[in-house]
Amino acid sequence: MATKERASTKEKDLHELFLDTLKDIYYAEKQILKALPKMAKAANSEDLQAAFDKHEGETEGHVERLEKVFDLIGKPARGKRCEAIDGIIDEGKEVMHDYAETPALDAGLLAAAQAVEHYEISRYGTLKAWAVKLQMKEAVRLFDQTLTEEKNTDDTLTKIAEKAVNYEAAA
Amino acid sequence: MATKERASTKEKDLHELFLDTLKDIYYAEKQILKALPKMAKAANSEDLQAAFDKHEGETEGHVERLEKVFDLIGKPARGKRCEAIDGIIDEGKEVMHDYAETPALDAGLLAAAQAVEHYEISRYGTLKAWAVKLQMKEAVRLFDQTLTEEKNTDDTLTKIAEKAVNYEAAA
Repeated sequence: MATKERASTKEKDLHELFLDTLKDIYYAEKQILKALPKMAKAANSEDLQAAFDKHEGETEGHVERLEKVFDLIGKPARGKRCEAIDGIIDEGKEVMHDYAETPALDAGLLAAAQAVEHYEISRYGTLKAWAVKLQMKEAVRLFDQTLTEEKNTDDTLTKIAEKAVNYEAAA
Repeated sequence: MATKERASTKEKDLHELFLDTLKDIYYAEKQILKALPKMAKAANSEDLQAAFDKHEGETEGHVERLEKVFDLIGKPARGKRCEAIDGIIDEGKEVMHDYAETPALDAGLLAAAQAVEHYEISRYGTLKAWAVKLQMKEAVRLFDQTLTEEKNTDDTLTKIAEKAVNYEAAA
């Protein structure tokens, strides 16, 4: 029986998938870091601007945490083009262009930002689960911190959306 | 004071954004409907196959609900290319290709499926919030039904991931 050998192959595969996904979210965070100041500048509502500004600071921390995880597994921090985040951000740019100067702009920005948050929540949730399986305690802790911040940001955005900024901004 | 006129412009903008986003998720659901049977076929674990099969049936229902909403606003049901879902699905295809025949395949499929679910959760959450503002009671009800199913699917996928199918499948 080659049970042991098979087990190590299995582990190697999950490690590879883990590294691929780490590169994917590293690229994504960097793209988000570029997009956030533009979204903050475009937003009409002060609440929304403040939320984007705050999240920009947090995102810098997320990038640093990812670099720590790369370090933990002895790999250079390198991104890998992630078509999903590119698509999500492009849709946000489209909204900024198509709804510029309209009172619905903030509603569109909120929708785009929440799509970004949910993408990240799914990726960090996955990475945390894999880190648990791979018994990488420190990585679990780092992912968990970021996951909490992403969920809090999503909640903040929901609250701003409920306050109907798109109506108030032009009132 | 042109308050009334301004109010109607505002409403028109949110209506347009609503329609744009409806077209976006309609396209997305159709793409997901095409991807699910391939993901079910690729999955190693029976639990995961069953989850994909079940969600395919639900997704047909989501498409029908969206068609009802198009009907409610008197517009033809038409999709609009959504780069975000294309990107997410392409990443899933990449995983299916790169990890085919490996025990990590199911873990990769789960990650891809959860990214899809989170995209949908963010879109339906947004559409429901806008439908509330636009006082479209029936649309709120329809979005809410779909939102519940998407969240339940995400929970099911999390449970399967926790059962570590990627390990068990090759055991």
